[in-house]
Amino acid sequence: MVRASVILLLALCVATPARADDVGTTAASLAQRMRADTTPFDTVASLTTEVGQRLAGTEAHARAVQWAEAKLTSYGLANVHAESFSITAWIRGVETARVTVPAPLQLAVTALGGSVATPPEGIEAEIVLFHTYADLLAAAPRSLDGRIAVVTQRMVRVEDGAGYGAANPIRRAGPSEAARRGAVAYLHRSLATDNHRLPHTGALNYQDGAPRIPAAALSMPDADQLERMTALGKVRIRLVLTPVERENAPTWNVVGEVPGRERPDEIVLIGAHLDSWDLGTGATDDGAGDGIVMSVGKLIAALPQHPRRTLRVVLFGAEEMDYSGPAYAKAHADEAAHIVLAAEADFGAREAYAVMLPAGAADADFGRALDRTLAPLGAFVDRRPAVGGGDDVRGLQKEGVPVASVRQNGLDYFDTHHTADDTLDKIDPRQLSQAASVWTALVYLAAETAFDFRKAAAAPK
Amino acid sequence: MVRASVILLLALCVATPARADDVGTTAASLAQRMRADTTPFDTVASLTTEVGQRLAGTEAHARAVQWAEAKLTSYGLANVHAESFSITAWIRGVETARVTVPAPLQLAVTALGGSVATPPEGIEAEIVLFHTYADLLAAAPRSLDGRIAVVTQRMVRVEDGAGYGAANPIRRAGPSEAARRGAVAYLHRSLATDNHRLPHTGALNYQDGAPRIPAAALSMPDADQLERMTALGKVRIRLVLTPVERENAPTWNVVGEVPGRERPDEIVLIGAHLDSWDLGTGATDDGAGDGIVMSVGKLIAALPQHPRRTLRVVLFGAEEMDYSGPAYAKAHADEAAHIVLAAEADFGAREAYAVMLPAGAADADFGRALDRTLAPLGAFVDRRPAVGGGDDVRGLQKEGVPVASVRQNGLDYFDTHHTADDTLDKIDPRQLSQAASVWTALVYLAAETAFDFRKAAAAPK
Repeated sequence: MVRASVILLLALCVATPARADDVGTTAASLAQRMRADTTPFDTVASLTTEVGQRLAGTEAHARAVQWAEAKLTSYGLANVHAESFSITAWIRGVETARVTVPAPLQLAVTALGGSVATPPEGIEAEIVLFHTYADLLAAAPRSLDGRIAVVTQRMVRVEDGAGYGAANPIRRAGPSEAARRGAVAYLHRSLATDNHRLPHTGALNYQDGAPRIPAAALSMPDADQLERMTALGKVRIRLVLTPVERENAPTWNVVGEVPGRERPDEIVLIGAHLDSWDLGTGATDDGAGDGIVMSVGKLIAALPQHPRRTLRVVLFGAEEMDYSGPAYAKAHADEAAHIVLAAEADFGAREAYAVMLPAGAADADFGRALDRTLAPLGAFVDRRPAVGGGDDVRGLQKEGVPVASVRQNGLDYFDTHHTADDTLDKIDPRQLSQAASVWTALVYLAAETAFDFRKAAAAPK
Repeated sequence: MVRASVILLLALCVATPARADDVGTTAASLAQRMRADTTPFDTVASLTTEVGQRLAGTEAHARAVQWAEAKLTSYGLANVHAESFSITAWIRGVETARVTVPAPLQLAVTALGGSVATPPEGIEAEIVLFHTYADLLAAAPRSLDGRIAVVTQRMVRVEDGAGYGAANPIRRAGPSEAARRGAVAYLHRSLATDNHRLPHTGALNYQDGAPRIPAAALSMPDADQLERMTALGKVRIRLVLTPVERENAPTWNVVGEVPGRERPDEIVLIGAHLDSWDLGTGATDDGAGDGIVMSVGKLIAALPQHPRRTLRVVLFGAEEMDYSGPAYAKAHADEAAHIVLAAEADFGAREAYAVMLPAGAADADFGRALDRTLAPLGAFVDRRPAVGGGDDVRGLQKEGVPVASVRQNGLDYFDTHHTADDTLDKIDPRQLSQAASVWTALVYLAAETAFDFRKAAAAPK
């Protein structure tokens, strides 16, 4: 390889501008440093140990914000600050479900985020069980009057998470669809791929014009059990959910920057969400994303020469209940034209295998340089353009900000997602560092080159 | 569930036309029958045992064509016939590679399809090794004069095969790119995800204006070995490849149909390719696809009432060398407007997890009906539109034919793809039947409904 390297170096000096080569070499070297760095894991360990769960709008999240400001500062980022906004916080209460007929049986359930409460003594009713969500949608108006609707459709395990996207309406829209048909409560099989007795929470979205009924997710074995029991005869369930809401609860997006040395007004924005569900410690969702973007910020901030453009790291404050993305986009709409690229790390802690770029970038110099940097990391540039960049940057995308997506292996992400089981032990530090190394390559190249993603997207194909 | 089913049936009678419900019920029932049917596996077993490998343009492929005509006829399809076209057949010869300096070492290599031969005694030269394909592209003109270029970049394991797509230029374009820089031969790490001593073949595409140099793929352990050896010093290799070409070799696309009962001029075209590489028995590539589409044809042909539209099953004759898709599109260009949907099964024998439809179909009645049918099979309609429908239907797609794509788990597909190891034992009959059941749902709904995929794609979003 000595000979080949020499030839290659000579070739590069002849064939490409030294400057572009420097950028590529630096990107590759930074990515390799990140790959051997334990900062991503150490950051998640610190967050999940020192703060633990951090539900948006609660005191725990306020502690996480303090943690984040201190950590970003210690990581060398500038302009560290928290941007406040207010949300309707939703606080879990008692959540129990018990089969009463044909015989007593405790079920493992967890309330959906945003669910209204039952009366303190609960709601007891006969259930109507649907094996698919489409079966529920095909049920006639009033056909569920006075019943508890139960949907047991399974989501499908897919590496890129497409199974979760496809199943999402079961949780998001199911409660209102059941209520429209007369149901007094709603249960569904957790949107998940495990088979543990731990239910998976997640937000619902009540629809206008439908009664707001209590809604909860069943663990996978409990959904199976109800399928078998209803095949034998009538089943009644008593459901107790006592969540409360707090209007105008304060929350914050935490920001830190590495100011650009030549084009400080051009911003590469990378984010993750600091809030988590309350059941576990939010290690993979989204401590891992926090660990990735904070570590990338630390590495870039420590460079003797900052990249040309500004790197902005945003730790969003209320992703799980859908508040922080819109809040950030609203507060920064005037600035959107200055954000050259945005992306969010919010798909767990496994290895990254690909990067999807805004349209037009994969086949341009930028994509080729990135692909070359990714190859030794075991990843590549997917030529299909990124459709989205994450929940919290969707608002920016609507304002015209180009988005990228780092693809991580999500085959087991939905085994523990949104459960009590989302804890630090699920993270392999080496896989997390590899994912962070892919982010490093993307971020450094986007911040150091002057590549215009908007222009590339607008160019004729 | 008795109660729920009754309610549901009542609901359906009220809420939806009985006819649409019948179609959905039939689709679900046919899919379940296919899931429990061993015809897909039995078909692959018959093909791989009775014919074995079936390289396009050879006597073996001619036997496969006879096998296919007989099998389609015995499966009850009508209009069974073979449509001939001619290709330049490429026949593998001796293929050996041996390290001569620093010390003798045999390497496991296989010629790329379309490669020119070396002289009978071979080519011996010092190698220049590139860890990434981008490194080769960055090499200066003449920098490889008289050398054998070796690219050892790894492809990335991805469920949907995106890693293969990204790495494809290494095999397809690498030989010409190396030749342009002066190389006298080209070797690359197999496009694969295994670590066996079995190299993976596949077609190359010589580019105009570049010398045609012999090219072969290395097994994964051999590529590793060369990386380590070149790090220690100079390495020379003697490469012997003696393939031959046969101009105007005859080959055939084999066709069978289930004529539509009401709209026979509207065609749902499903295909797979009958040809295979010569190293294994083409069990997963593409015996599995043949097994799927032939079994779907058999099931539909046996219905007491045929679907409204015609189902056409096409077993393409020369996919591996890129001939059959263009040949079919050219021969059937006048008919393209009558083909309402086309799709090819060519991604192995594992379970199907999703279907991608032409734009506009997922969110229409068709997509909802399909999604409902797929849920019990463990699959779903991916809302992202299909980009392609398979190599052999790309020509039709260019003629305006809407395409769909059934997504199968490809995590281990590239472990044995294009190798001597592509044999029947790699297929799990139950997984293959599940994939065929997903195809059944798609095909029956497309053939029985009058859904207009072209119109849906053209509708404003």
